[in-house]
This record gives sequence, C-alpha cells and structure tokens, in this order.
Amino acid sequence: MKHKLPTPLRGVITAMVTPLDQNLNLDPKGLERLIEHLIEGGVHGIFILGTTGEAPNLPYNVRSALIQQSCEIAGSRVPVIVGITDTSYQDALRMAAKAHECGAAAVVAAPPYYFQVGQADLLQYFKRLAADSPLPVFLYNAPLNTHLWLEVATAIEAAAEPNIVGLKDSGLNMGYFHAVREGVRSLPDFSLLVGPDDLLAEAVLVGAHGGMAGGSNVRPRLFVELYEAAVAQDVRRVTALHEQVIQFDNAVYRSADDPHNPLRGLKAALSILGICSAALTPPLRPISNGERERIQQYLRGVDLSVVSHS
Amino acid sequence: MKHKLPTPLRGVITAMVTPLDQNLNLDPKGLERLIEHLIEGGVHGIFILGTTGEAPNLPYNVRSALIQQSCEIAGSRVPVIVGITDTSYQDALRMAAKAHECGAAAVVAAPPYYFQVGQADLLQYFKRLAADSPLPVFLYNAPLNTHLWLEVATAIEAAAEPNIVGLKDSGLNMGYFHAVREGVRSLPDFSLLVGPDDLLAEAVLVGAHGGMAGGSNVRPRLFVELYEAAVAQDVRRVTALHEQVIQFDNAVYRSADDPHNPLRGLKAALSILGICSAALTPPLRPISNGERERIQQYLRGVDLSVVSHS
Amino acid sequence: MKHKLPTPLRGVITAMVTPLDQNLNLDPKGLERLIEHLIEGGVHGIFILGTTGEAPNLPYNVRSALIQQSCEIAGSRVPVIVGITDTSYQDALRMAAKAHECGAAAVVAAPPYYFQVGQADLLQYFKRLAADSPLPVFLYNAPLNTHLWLEVATAIEAAAEPNIVGLKDSGLNMGYFHAVREGVRSLPDFSLLVGPDDLLAEAVLVGAHGGMAGGSNVRPRLFVELYEAAVAQDVRRVTALHEQVIQFDNAVYRSADDPHNPLRGLKAALSILGICSAALTPPLRPISNGERERIQQYLRGVDLSVVSHS
Amino acid sequence: MKHKLPTPLRGVITAMVTPLDQNLNLDPKGLERLIEHLIEGGVHGIFILGTTGEAPNLPYNVRSALIQQSCEIAGSRVPVIVGITDTSYQDALRMAAKAHECGAAAVVAAPPYYFQVGQADLLQYFKRLAADSPLPVFLYNAPLNTHLWLEVATAIEAAAEPNIVGLKDSGLNMGYFHAVREGVRSLPDFSLLVGPDDLLAEAVLVGAHGGMAGGSNVRPRLFVELYEAAVAQDVRRVTALHEQVIQFDNAVYRSADDPHNPLRGLKAALSILGICSAALTPPLRPISNGERERIQQYLRGVDLSVVSHS
Repeated sequence: MKHKLPTPLRGVITAMVTPLDQNLNLDPKGLERLIEHLIEGGVHGIFILGTTGEAPNLPYNVRSALIQQSCEIAGSRVPVIVGITDTSYQDALRMAAKAHECGAAAVVAAPPYYFQVGQADLLQYFKRLAADSPLPVFLYNAPLNTHLWLEVATAIEAAAEPNIVGLKDSGLNMGYFHAVREGVRSLPDFSLLVGPDDLLAEAVLVGAHGGMAGGSNVRPRLFVELYEAAVAQDVRRVTALHEQVIQFDNAVYRSADDPHNPLRGLKAALSILGICSAALTPPLRPISNGERERIQQYLRGVDLSVVSHS
Repeated sequence: MKHKLPTPLRGVITAMVTPLDQNLNLDPKGLERLIEHLIEGGVHGIFILGTTGEAPNLPYNVRSALIQQSCEIAGSRVPVIVGITDTSYQDALRMAAKAHECGAAAVVAAPPYYFQVGQADLLQYFKRLAADSPLPVFLYNAPLNTHLWLEVATAIEAAAEPNIVGLKDSGLNMGYFHAVREGVRSLPDFSLLVGPDDLLAEAVLVGAHGGMAGGSNVRPRLFVELYEAAVAQDVRRVTALHEQVIQFDNAVYRSADDPHNPLRGLKAALSILGICSAALTPPLRPISNGERERIQQYLRGVDLSVVSHS
Repeated sequence: MKHKLPTPLRGVITAMVTPLDQNLNLDPKGLERLIEHLIEGGVHGIFILGTTGEAPNLPYNVRSALIQQSCEIAGSRVPVIVGITDTSYQDALRMAAKAHECGAAAVVAAPPYYFQVGQADLLQYFKRLAADSPLPVFLYNAPLNTHLWLEVATAIEAAAEPNIVGLKDSGLNMGYFHAVREGVRSLPDFSLLVGPDDLLAEAVLVGAHGGMAGGSNVRPRLFVELYEAAVAQDVRRVTALHEQVIQFDNAVYRSADDPHNPLRGLKAALSILGICSAALTPPLRPISNGERERIQQYLRGVDLSVVSHS
Repeated sequence: MKHKLPTPLRGVITAMVTPLDQNLNLDPKGLERLIEHLIEGGVHGIFILGTTGEAPNLPYNVRSALIQQSCEIAGSRVPVIVGITDTSYQDALRMAAKAHECGAAAVVAAPPYYFQVGQADLLQYFKRLAADSPLPVFLYNAPLNTHLWLEVATAIEAAAEPNIVGLKDSGLNMGYFHAVREGVRSLPDFSLLVGPDDLLAEAVLVGAHGGMAGGSNVRPRLFVELYEAAVAQDVRRVTALHEQVIQFDNAVYRSADDPHNPLRGLKAALSILGICSAALTPPLRPISNGERERIQQYLRGVDLSVVSHS
C-alpha cells in the first residue's frame, strides 16, 4: 500500500542489501527476515535498489520482484524508497512506474554513468526525470560508482524543481554536503541525507535530516540510537555510538584481504546472523573464510539488541 | 541467417551508431540506409551495441529490436558482432542468447562497470561468461567508460579460454595493445582489434588484424582503403589516408564547443548525409547549430566516394 | 626562539598563505602584518609552507627566508610548524634542518609526489624521514595535490614511530579520518588535525584535536570561536559558527568563475583587508575583478572582530 | 661546449637514467660509462633530468652537477637536452640558466604539478617560460606524473611561440599525438617526439621525428636501428625490431612483482651490465632479487651489439 513521503524525510533509512539465493534469484524468505529485522530495529525507512542493494547488477525481473515484495512486506509501517541506477532513461522510467504502482514513496536517481557528461547535461537530465517521474525524486550523488559528480551548483539548481525533494549524498566529502545544504536553506522541505555510515553522526549534528547507512542492515538499533542522540545534541552519547560505528566499519567493511567492495562484508555478516545468504552478483565474489571468521568474532563481541534470526 | 565468424576476424568492423527516431525508438529505415551504406563502403563486419551505438543508454526492447533487424538486413553479407555492456550478468546472457538466435557471429563483452572490482574478479567473470555464452566472446577493454582496466596479464590469461576469441581494445594506449599482442603470439586465431579511428593505421602496420573505427559509419571507404594500404605495407599511402582520418576526427569529433562525447558529431554527420537522424539518448544532447555547420563544411570538402542518401 | 610542541597539538593552526611582492619575493611587511593578525585573532599555531602557502611553487631561497622570518616574528607566542612538500628527499631534510635551526616546533611532511608509489614505499619513506628529521614529524595526507593516499593501515603503522607525532589530513573524507583516529586510540599524544575549513566543526565535535583551516588567515577569530564551541560541545553555537564558515567558503573559495585553486580567493581577501598583496606563484593566476568584487561585498557584510590593516 | 639544436630534432634521444652512488650522490664514473655506451650505440641526443632520470627526486646540487658533467662528457658529439620538472618557476629558470651556461641545446619543460590548474593557466605559463628561458623549450606532456594534460588546442597554440621548438609526448595516447601533429603541420621545424619505447616504431612510421625511449639506456643500438628502419619505411624490419622492443619492455619494465615504476628495472639492467649502480632516490626502492634474476636471464638471451662494460 502507498506510504506518503514525510517532508523532509528524517532518520535512518537503511540502504538495504538484496537477499539472493545461490541462483541469483530473489530470496523471499530472506527478504522478509531482513525487513522485519530492520523494522524491529526502529529504522525510519527502507531504501532498496541502491549501491548497497547491488541494483545495477540485478536483472530487471529481480528488480521488479524486489520492489513488489518489499512494498508488500513493509506495508504502511515504513516508507520504501527505490533506487534508479539504470543506464537507460526509458528503463529508469519503467522502474519508477513500477515503484509507483507498488506503493513506494519516492525514487533515488543516479544519472546514467557509462558516458562522461557535463553538468549542463546532468541538470537537464534530472529536470526531465523530475517531470516524467510519477514519484518524487531524490538526487543520488554516487561519484565513486558513477564517476560523475553532481556539482554543488548543479545540485542546488536541481533542488528548485518541484518534484525533486532531496539529496542522497554518497560522495564522502562533507564539505560538498555542507555547501549544498547552505544553498538550499530556503527550501525547508528538501531532504538532506548522507550515505556512508561513518558520516551519519556529524551530518545530523550539524543539520542533516538523516542518513542511509548500510551498516544498519546488520545493526539497525545502533544507527537509530546514534541518530536520536545526534538530534538531541547529546555529543557525549553521539561520540560513544559513533565510535561503535567506526569499529563496525573497520570489522565488517575493512576486514577484507581484498579491499574491493564493502558490501561483501555486509552480506557475510547478515548470513552469519541467519538473516539471508551471502550470495553476490557477478563480478562481485564472496569474502574468504578468514575474513568471515573475523566478522564472526566481531559480531560475537557486540550486543545486537535484537534477537538474531537463525 | 547465421554468419560464421572468420578466425581471426580481420578488417574494418564498423562500431555502428544506433539510428533512433525522436521518441528514442529504433528507426528501421535509417538502420537499413546505414547498413547498406556500410556494406557498399566495403566494411568487413558490423559491431552493433558498442559505445558508439549508445548501447548502455538504450532500453532493452530497443536493444533486442536492433539485434534482430541488423542481422536480418546484413544477412550473409557481413558478420554482425553484438556488444554486451550490461551491468547485470543475467541480462548480459539474455542479450547473448538473443544475438545467437538472430544469427550474430560473436559478442564483444565489457565487464559490469558500476562497481570497482579487482583483476581476479574480472578474470573469473570473463571465464564464466565464456562458458555460459552461446556465441564466441571478444574481450572489450573500454576503460574510459567502464573505469576498469583489463590488465595485460588478465587479458592474456583470459585469451587462453576456448570460447574467448579476440580483444577489442579501446584503451587508447597502444603500448598496452602491443603487450597483449606479444602475450598471445602463440594463439594465431585470436583476433586483435583496436577501437579508435586514429590508431587503426599503426595498429595494422605493426600486426593488428583490424579495427572498429567509429568514423567508418560516415566514411567507410576511407577506412577500408586505409586498412588495405596498411596490410600491403604501403607506408606512403597509409600516412596520406591516416592524415585524412585525423582531419576527420578533428572536424567531426573535436569540433564540439563542449567536449563531451565524440558520438554527437558522428550522428550529426550522418544526419547531414541523410542517413539517419541526430537523435541521442539522454543524458547525451545534440550538438549546437554552430558545430553542425562546421561539420557540414568539412563534409562538403571531402569525397565520400559513395553516393549520399538523401 | 624554539617553541616546544604541545602534545597533542590542539586548536586552530592556521595554514598560512605566503605574502609575496610582485617579483615573487617574500614580502616581510606583509608577513609581519599577517602573523600579527593571526596572533591577535587567537590562533594556537601557524603552519607555514603548506598547500595554502604555495610551498612547492616557491623557490628555495624564499622558503628559507619564510622559515627564518616567521619564526622570528612569532617568537615564543605560538608554535610554528613547517611544511615539507619537496620532491627530493635530500632537499626535504635540508628544509627540516633549517626549520630546526630557526626554532620551529615540528614539520608536516607530504611524500614526494612526482612518481606513483605503493603503500610499502610510503611507509618506508616516512620511517626513514622520522629517523632523519631533527624535528617531530606530522604525516601530511594531501591526496588532491599529491595523488597519493596514505591509506588507513599505513597511517596507523607510521603513527607508531617515535618521532611521528601527528596527522594533518586534507583528504576531505572524514570516514578516513575517523578510521585512523580509531586506529591510534592507544596513542593519546598523537595529534589529529583536519585540513579543510568546513570539516573543523564536526572533526572537533567527535574528537579531533584541531584543524589547519586556511580561512583562518582572513577570519582567525571565527575559527577560534568555532573550535572553542566544539570543545565545549555547544552544538547550537557550533552550527551557527559552522554556517558562517560555509558562507565564507562559498564567498571566498567558490566565487571563482574558474574553479581552479581556492587559494586565489584567500589572497584576494587578504589584499582587500590590506594585509598582503594578492600576488601568486606561476602557474596560478589572480582572480578576475568581478570575483574580487564579490569577495569585497562578502567582507563588507561580516564582522571581522579585529581591526583591518590598511 | 655548446651544441646547436638540429631543427627539427630527429632520431633516438635517450631519456637518460641518473647514475647514483649509495649515498645518492652523482656517480661520475657511472655517468661517463653510460654516456659512452649511448654514443657508441649511435643515439642522436641525450635527454637528462626527465622522468627516467628521476629528476624531481634529485636535490638541486645533484641536478646541477649532472648538467655540468653530462655536457662535458658529451661535448660536441651529441646534443644534451635538459628536463625542467620543477614545481617552482624561479628554480626552473635557474636550472635553464645552468643548462645554457653548460652548453646544453634545449630544455624540456613540464608544468609545475602540485596544483591542478586549467588550460589557460598552462598556456600562459609556457608562454612566460618561453620568453624567459635562455634556451629553446620543448613542451613536456607527462600526465601520468604531473596529472595535468596539455590539451591538443593548448599544445598547438603554445607551438606558435618563437622559442617553443617541440613536444615530448609521454601521454601514451597516440591519438593525442596525431592531433597535435596535424595542428602544427604548418611548422616544419617543430619537433615531435614520443616518450614511451613501445610507441617509437609507429610514431616514426606515420611521421614523428623521433623518440626518447628509456630502453635505449640499455639497448641503444636496438632503438637506433628501429628508428632507421622506420625512416626507411621498411615495415617488415620495423615489426621485427618492434617485437624485440616489446619483449624488452615485458622483461625489464613488467617483470616487477610490484608494478610501481618501470625505472627500477632499467637501473637493475644497467647495474647487471656493469654500467652504473641500481641505487634509486626515495621513495623508489630497488627491485627484488627474483625480479633482478629475471632481467638477468633476459639480458643473457639478447645480443646487445655493443660490448658490456664491467
């Protein structure tokens, strides 16, 4: 059912991983366990089909099924936001229509990323998409994956479009985020969300509305509490929880012998918790047994505050 | 009808643009005019759905229609090679199956490019694809678009796979190409083709089998004659024709006020010749009138050696 | 005279611009005015010969003169820290010896940056420098200029060297900074300082010792007050002052028609204030009159809290 | 003594390594052996203080001594060209003056590379340098090290300056080289030289004047013969010699376990031949014994055509 988008969108919106079976089909049981785990953990929304969701690597039938089933499972409990990471504009619109039809609250759109284009091209692209999309659009700044920066001036100009309602910034550079935030000060409903786990604390302390931390797949409660402490301007508590986030990142993302793709650790952690399998889309490959062992040790040492599902 | 792949594949294999109408659907008349123009011009094969073909930006229904119609039009006259530039492995296989079913001779596969991965990941990816693909596979090194380099050692190891039959190198660095060529010296059937127009002359002079010059969409005869002169080791003629290629590139690719994407000039030139429209997929945008005028002036000054189609 | 380095070094350490005359020689009067402006503004230290100081572009005689005169002017009032941005190891040591002889408190060393090298090379380089330097060494992570990242593990391992006393991180990615901070938790004297103006607030809130904000050349009081508010965990005041910093950055750094090098706006602002000329080392060029006018307007609107020097 | 610069400069101009002793001082005996080895091998000029010469990593006293002694040893036999890779304009001019005073024929100048600057900045820089330099200036396009591209239009406009006499292109992209060459067609005295070993053959075949192959430090005769075959348009001989060059590159440059810096293999090969030591400037480090052994095996298998100096 349709969930109305809060304006601005606030809180911890989990950039959800996509549970797959060994044949790379959607795992409906895993999906259900994961969404229940997140809602129990108190997250304020679910962002499916983003970078953490391996969206570009999923075939279109899996993407469609994921949109449908996620919206059904979440129901009216939390808003579902759908990532648009297509290289084809027409296929992007097709996914936006599917998201709308299934009751998602908004889309988060990255620009097509095979071709290098200029800022004027990006601006025109987002204006066209905003006009054509049946759902409100978040700008998705994901330069590590798209190799395209949505520059400060471009983001500010795009933010003035009626159907563009927010920014999800995964650019790692908080100076960029601050500059955009200053530039949209006159738009109080425009949502400002950061991507990475390790920037959630400071972003909310200085004025962001929330974040899409991937780590909240595994530890939703930790990120929700961190968000709440930051909203309450309780710096002492923020720094204590932020420290736990850094330890999580070091254990789960950086434990890899091979540094490629933090997502591999995330799926390993979820499979250790019995929530879903560690299966990944090619060319991504599972982590080694040694790395998995290190993640397992880390998980044993922390209080997940929600019952693990095995 | 099915066209058997020559081993090695030699000559000028046009990296074909995709003729579109203003609604971004495939333009079947334009496609027919273009393929006839190429075959009249003497090209040795047609490579559809590559970078020049805007493949990643086309929706899947257009990609399928293009494969079908191109194979039908070309028939047994020249082999059709199909680009695989998907971010999803399963969708890539779906396109390979479609290409096989329509009678294409081979696929040219770029790796999924949303995620940065390592060389071991790339190698395993291509091995799996070679095993699963119903058609022979060319490696597609396209680092300017994919931001992934298929390193020399990786390319050489992949070349030993039974169903991997060649390399299309669009990396611009001829030193890389020479190093791979030296590494596959023991595989006389392995095809070595360069991407860019301006490297065709030297590549063939020192031993490549041919190239996939985008400029041959507009001037097929020029590139075919250049190829033949290089095969004949007629350096004087090669340098004269190569100079014309550089002038073509400067006029058509580099005339842009805005440097993004050489393909824009190529489609403008084809629309000036009455072959197909200049319509481009978003976020690419047509060139300005001033740029178009400069291309028109260039085309007036050259002998296209084939009748223009208006 | 020699100034002992506080451990850890805390507060606002201005990354000082280098006042030059029109012949690109050091301007001693401008230097004196600038240092007095900074000390009046309450900064806790002065970092000369960094990126903001155009260090690599200065000839060696100017670098030597700057070290000598800065140390003389500052005297025992604030510590002077000297940047080492040489491409030659032996010349770097020569500058470290000069800094030591003049009474500087420490050096901040970037690795030689003409050649790409690996992490093992960087680690060994810093170990050797730490052993050979007569002054304590800060690691200088400046990837936007050096195109070399001192990776998290490398920084942590280097931090264990006896004569390596801190990190100045200008990498823009606070996640990196947090990861290093977590990794050196057992070294309470190791100084953690951020480079960019717009990251000072959040860095100190979550535990950094201070920053080297370039904007404090113009507005030392603003940055000192921001630092103090962050130490006091007064989030409301931090966000208000942080907003002023972002406005400063937008006005002075981002007002450029041509985006290259924020330093150009900084020197223009200082010349508007009558502190020193806007002369820059080649190939850097002064900003346009229009940009200068915009900076002037900005400066008219703010309370500099210290008397301007004309 | 002064050597007049041929216009255009043609042939194989060795990008010479800098022989050092274990204390990183210039090794005068090694320098003499190396220059005699090159002249015996028939090279047409010597390029000192380039990337292969580790120029930026050498302290200024070593750079000065190298200029002086190289000019003395070479005498009037071959022209000496001096690289200018300084980050300081004034130090660059000081090196140009030293080169002039010692009788060098020209300088090859890279732009200062610590700061990212735009094309207009680069153009103005080279114009100023051309006006101030006592020696003719070659543009040095070395983007892998400087991270600055001298774009086609910039290079062409700079080429029109009276004291700018040529281009040394180490950008690896022959398309760039062809485009500049086409753009300076009206300047028959403008020298066009390529950097990398593996591009010499094709560059000269299609019209370049020569190259600055680093491999000619070890095998001057091979590169001179390759150059002569290319000038004679003897494609069969060119391809046979070019193949030897690729084998050389694979053995000496690519044998490294750690890929950083091909120069390491070059110095190892020269030390195996007894010409000079393998000592390298920090942070570069010598290759492993295993790599050295592989280079030794390669050298045993080839006919160096000149007596080795042990």
